[in-house]
Amino acid sequence: MPRYALKVEYHGAPFAGWQRQADQPSVQGAIETALAKLEPGPQDGAHTIAAAGRTDAGVHALAQVAHCDLARDWEAFRLMEALNYHLKPLPVAIVDAAEVGEDWHARFSARERRYLFRLLVRRAPATHDKGLVWQVKNPLDLQAMRDGAAHLVGRHDFTTFRSTMCQADSPVKTLDEITIEEIARETGVEFRFRLRARSFLHNQVRSIVGTLERVGAGSWPAERVKEALRAADRAACGPVCPPEGLYLAGVGYPEDPFEG
Amino acid sequence: MPRYALKVEYHGAPFAGWQRQADQPSVQGAIETALAKLEPGPQDGAHTIAAAGRTDAGVHALAQVAHCDLARDWEAFRLMEALNYHLKPLPVAIVDAAEVGEDWHARFSARERRYLFRLLVRRAPATHDKGLVWQVKNPLDLQAMRDGAAHLVGRHDFTTFRSTMCQADSPVKTLDEITIEEIARETGVEFRFRLRARSFLHNQVRSIVGTLERVGAGSWPAERVKEALRAADRAACGPVCPPEGLYLAGVGYPEDPFEG
Repeated sequence: MPRYALKVEYHGAPFAGWQRQADQPSVQGAIETALAKLEPGPQDGAHTIAAAGRTDAGVHALAQVAHCDLARDWEAFRLMEALNYHLKPLPVAIVDAAEVGEDWHARFSARERRYLFRLLVRRAPATHDKGLVWQVKNPLDLQAMRDGAAHLVGRHDFTTFRSTMCQADSPVKTLDEITIEEIARETGVEFRFRLRARSFLHNQVRSIVGTLERVGAGSWPAERVKEALRAADRAACGPVCPPEGLYLAGVGYPEDPFEG
Repeated sequence: MPRYALKVEYHGAPFAGWQRQADQPSVQGAIETALAKLEPGPQDGAHTIAAAGRTDAGVHALAQVAHCDLARDWEAFRLMEALNYHLKPLPVAIVDAAEVGEDWHARFSARERRYLFRLLVRRAPATHDKGLVWQVKNPLDLQAMRDGAAHLVGRHDFTTFRSTMCQADSPVKTLDEITIEEIARETGVEFRFRLRARSFLHNQVRSIVGTLERVGAGSWPAERVKEALRAADRAACGPVCPPEGLYLAGVGYPEDPFEG
């Protein structure tokens, strides 16, 4: 039974998140339904796919990675085209596909996740980017946010920055990198946060960006991020920001399955 | 009666274009309705505003400029905020406002219009940018498109590149600049065309970009753009491309009304 890796881009707005749910639309459910149009799956005709990151409701992806097992041998390009045909008109696109070994796993083989968070600062409401950015009205200080972010890089107990619903065994994670870039737009300024780690805790990125926004606004001194981290107490976190600015931007594997 | 210049950003999809129409939604109509919430207009309570460019159905703006006359003296910032409040939830935003002289006119005082056209090249359907780019599947040659575009810069009879419905007195226009930039995206490649002229003919940008796409795809040699221009014949034009990649990106005036 050949296994295929799928690289997936999606707009999170119409979905209750990646994970299949009984009575709500999900990205996983959309792709599994499209797969069932190609060939019946092993469980009463249904397919089950696994993904590198289970994104929350409203969170987008530029390059989520999932895998599926199929009975037929598919040419990867034709599999991608056929799935995109059946996914229409949903805002989910298979942007790459590749055959992988039977022991390759989209989630367990992954060694790195990369997230992007887009924060738009301006008074007037967003029009083209509505639902694709988190918008605030107050100006933000880039250097202060970078100073705050620097305290979070490395191996730490991230209890402060994870949801109380988080199911990870341990709150200790290594955050490899946070970069923040400021981009002048025709109207307003956009800040792009990029975070990279082997894995993230539930709501970790939104907890970090929401906290750094408070630093950028001048409500928090940058040093308070360090104190909040050391407290290892969810109550010490800044406000968790909304999902619409968040993108799963990429997943790293020991060997890139889509290369070549 | 003080006059105000308004800089307007909008998403073109829900509108039949800029211009007010009796029975279809328009950007002009949306702003005039919002103005009437602030104070009654001079014609049976209605307002009439003028704009630098009357964009077609589905065309977007980053910085359209319009003007309105109001009875009350408004602080420009408060006028912008009040209009944005009443424009919600439509994807129309007043991104700047300024008081101008009573002889200043958004259309007749303008000395330059700038358009942006976004063309996305990839197989998989767009998700985040759906309706905000024109998407094609075939690869395009940047240098060939630049070579083709070079034939169009300067003062020419643009009969080939204007709609047969165009109401301009003369087909002779001076195109000051076309630049084409290629941007690598996570999936696919985006080409950004930027055109600058004192004024444009109806469908001129879409006729030019549609023709250059044929050059980029290898269907037209770049030289054929020159021949098509010289023919001064609408039938010599390449296919007119769809409106969803087109943005009115800016309007130039002898003095920027929004400066300072």
